[in-house]
Amino acid sequence: MTITRAMLETLDRDDMLAPFRAEFDLPPDTIYLDGNSLGVLPVAAKARLRRVVEDEWGRGLIRSWNDAGWIDLPSRVGGMIAGLVGAAADEVTVADSTSVNLFKLAAAAVRMRPGRRVILSEPGNFPTDLYMLQGLSGLLGGAIELRTVPADAMADALTDEVALLLLTQVHYKTGHVHDMAALTARAHAVGALTLWDLSHSAGALAVDLNGAGVDFAVGCGYKYLNGGPGAPAFLFVARRHQDQAVQPLSGWMGHAAPFAFGDDYRPAPGIRRHLCGTPPILGLSALEEGVAVMARADMGRIREKSSRMGDLFLALVEQMCGPDCFGVISPRDARIRGSHVSLSHPDGYAIMQALIARGVIGDFRAPDALRFGFTPLYLRHADLWDAVAHLADIMRTGEYRQERFQTKTAVT
Amino acid sequence: MTITRAMLETLDRDDMLAPFRAEFDLPPDTIYLDGNSLGVLPVAAKARLRRVVEDEWGRGLIRSWNDAGWIDLPSRVGGMIAGLVGAAADEVTVADSTSVNLFKLAAAAVRMRPGRRVILSEPGNFPTDLYMLQGLSGLLGGAIELRTVPADAMADALTDEVALLLLTQVHYKTGHVHDMAALTARAHAVGALTLWDLSHSAGALAVDLNGAGVDFAVGCGYKYLNGGPGAPAFLFVARRHQDQAVQPLSGWMGHAAPFAFGDDYRPAPGIRRHLCGTPPILGLSALEEGVAVMARADMGRIREKSSRMGDLFLALVEQMCGPDCFGVISPRDARIRGSHVSLSHPDGYAIMQALIARGVIGDFRAPDALRFGFTPLYLRHADLWDAVAHLADIMRTGEYRQERFQTKTAVT
Repeated sequence: MTITRAMLETLDRDDMLAPFRAEFDLPPDTIYLDGNSLGVLPVAAKARLRRVVEDEWGRGLIRSWNDAGWIDLPSRVGGMIAGLVGAAADEVTVADSTSVNLFKLAAAAVRMRPGRRVILSEPGNFPTDLYMLQGLSGLLGGAIELRTVPADAMADALTDEVALLLLTQVHYKTGHVHDMAALTARAHAVGALTLWDLSHSAGALAVDLNGAGVDFAVGCGYKYLNGGPGAPAFLFVARRHQDQAVQPLSGWMGHAAPFAFGDDYRPAPGIRRHLCGTPPILGLSALEEGVAVMARADMGRIREKSSRMGDLFLALVEQMCGPDCFGVISPRDARIRGSHVSLSHPDGYAIMQALIARGVIGDFRAPDALRFGFTPLYLRHADLWDAVAHLADIMRTGEYRQERFQTKTAVT
Repeated sequence: MTITRAMLETLDRDDMLAPFRAEFDLPPDTIYLDGNSLGVLPVAAKARLRRVVEDEWGRGLIRSWNDAGWIDLPSRVGGMIAGLVGAAADEVTVADSTSVNLFKLAAAAVRMRPGRRVILSEPGNFPTDLYMLQGLSGLLGGAIELRTVPADAMADALTDEVALLLLTQVHYKTGHVHDMAALTARAHAVGALTLWDLSHSAGALAVDLNGAGVDFAVGCGYKYLNGGPGAPAFLFVARRHQDQAVQPLSGWMGHAAPFAFGDDYRPAPGIRRHLCGTPPILGLSALEEGVAVMARADMGRIREKSSRMGDLFLALVEQMCGPDCFGVISPRDARIRGSHVSLSHPDGYAIMQALIARGVIGDFRAPDALRFGFTPLYLRHADLWDAVAHLADIMRTGEYRQERFQTKTAVT
């Protein structure tokens, strides 16, 4: 069946999520297919940040830690994110970066499994996840080993040597979705703990951490949660582990009595012990606005629309560019595909630059992946038509071969 | 000699730093003596943050990593801070929190001194400094021991067991200034490395890291540097150590090729390997404006004025409150006193609340310290008169005994 733009416009007219588009401040003449890398600006975040900067910081100053509730922001925003990932409000907090949170929770987890020396992950996992674990292993003088095995060998690699299974639920490049519940159960069957990176799933899928029996999780604030560039990250510790989990970045904000200024660290009860330094108030405030919009949307509808958008995008690429123009890195089955789709092409970098020059923004992941993210709260089905029309035109004309699209920039 | 308000007004008229006051957005009817805890809002930060939020994030989106120079912010702001602390531009970067940076550099340092198991510090150091080292020690199963000895016993405690000496140059409570050069030399004489916390000295004193031969340093962005609530922190690694120092929080932003997305961590050359996760752009942008103002001021003049303000404040307290009203925690000798003064009083908490209710803002540090910070860029000498007049009035009337000033809040 040939897809027409009119069909997509009909889908948009019937889209129950369509009103959310007005809650975001979108750049004109742009089709933004990179919300999986940096989410867009929520309208409410503009006023919020003005208020935080000009009133709370400018006028309230130090008093705002109490009067504006700054001190409660990590747990408040954490509690809101909890609702998006199937956790209880007191199981999630916001702190530091995804990388730092991974380190904290991996270190806490291996300490809970003395005698086991393996942290299991997969090759090609988002690099910082592997790097942070390599850093932990190096610090511990090799007492912990990071072992990576391909996804299809994961079940067999789960042995009683494994202290922790660390996986990203939705793969940053392929978009493949792991079966979180099944792998968690398999890990538990051999006595291992699990740490899931939800960077590409929180705000994109209906994540059910407690339903899946997950032990620990981390995730990113600036992708689907629209928290702004370099937003702080979140972390989850299942309530059953909260009294045992001791993380090594034991800063004053995780102390049981941070303002008693004693010399000896005593971890706070519950999730708060996973805080470290002074919370980043500007970033937390922006994140709260991003999460607040997401929290009002129905996650089932979001998932349904993004799955449909991924299917439509793949079909449109084939229809408009031809069946052999691009490789398809992502699963074609939407049930095991996250909210982005990756194509491959040897000239992927230049093609993406040419697309961006036309106002269609995706991103490139070395060596050859063109990545397109579908964010149902602010994208229309018809945007897909327009984006792929540009792509087809770039391929037909060879526009991407122009020299100006070849130069690599710092961040791609 | 009795001090008069007219004398202070004369000092203000002759003050070469007075024009800087207009560069800060100060709340009306407030005397802010807490810039050592949270610096005030630079006027330029307001417009900068609007631009970062509304244009760079809102319009530029992912493109702003290149187009708005986001990716360079850590090294750019680090280079500016370097100029304030006697370092070369490529020896300082901005990342994470002071706590997290302490962990990174302490771990890097002890790895450079294999066989030595002691990290030496002092009791009563800022708690997070001790807590982070306790966390590192716990993670390493006691292979590293945090040992605290009082300042006057420090020299004798520096033995060849010591891998690292960790001290805060200006004590957060007493304001006492350590002799950084002498203690660093003494540490080096026994083969130990040094890590200095500059949280209460950067932007307050003429710090000379390289002149003192310091190995590592960290410091806070939201105090004297006026970077905003929870601003990211800075770190310093002397150039001679940059190829050897390997820190364990090896996130993707510290990778030699962060966008190659390889599976194996390879530290970036130079200072960049000390980055970890994605930089917090809102916080970094605000910090850049705070540092930019400070960088235009003469640090010698700043130090001279803050020393004079401390002396005047102590003299005014004695003159207006009486000689026995408060204990004096801080050194009376301005040469060994940082940019804040602490008084003691058994009712310190309530007295500070009563002062704050009158618009004179200092802070309280348990159990009994009233802390007053002097920030020469935006404070006038006459402000000291007015602040102490309020304090004297509160003490004379017993106003602080009112019940409303007794209730403890979350942050004090």
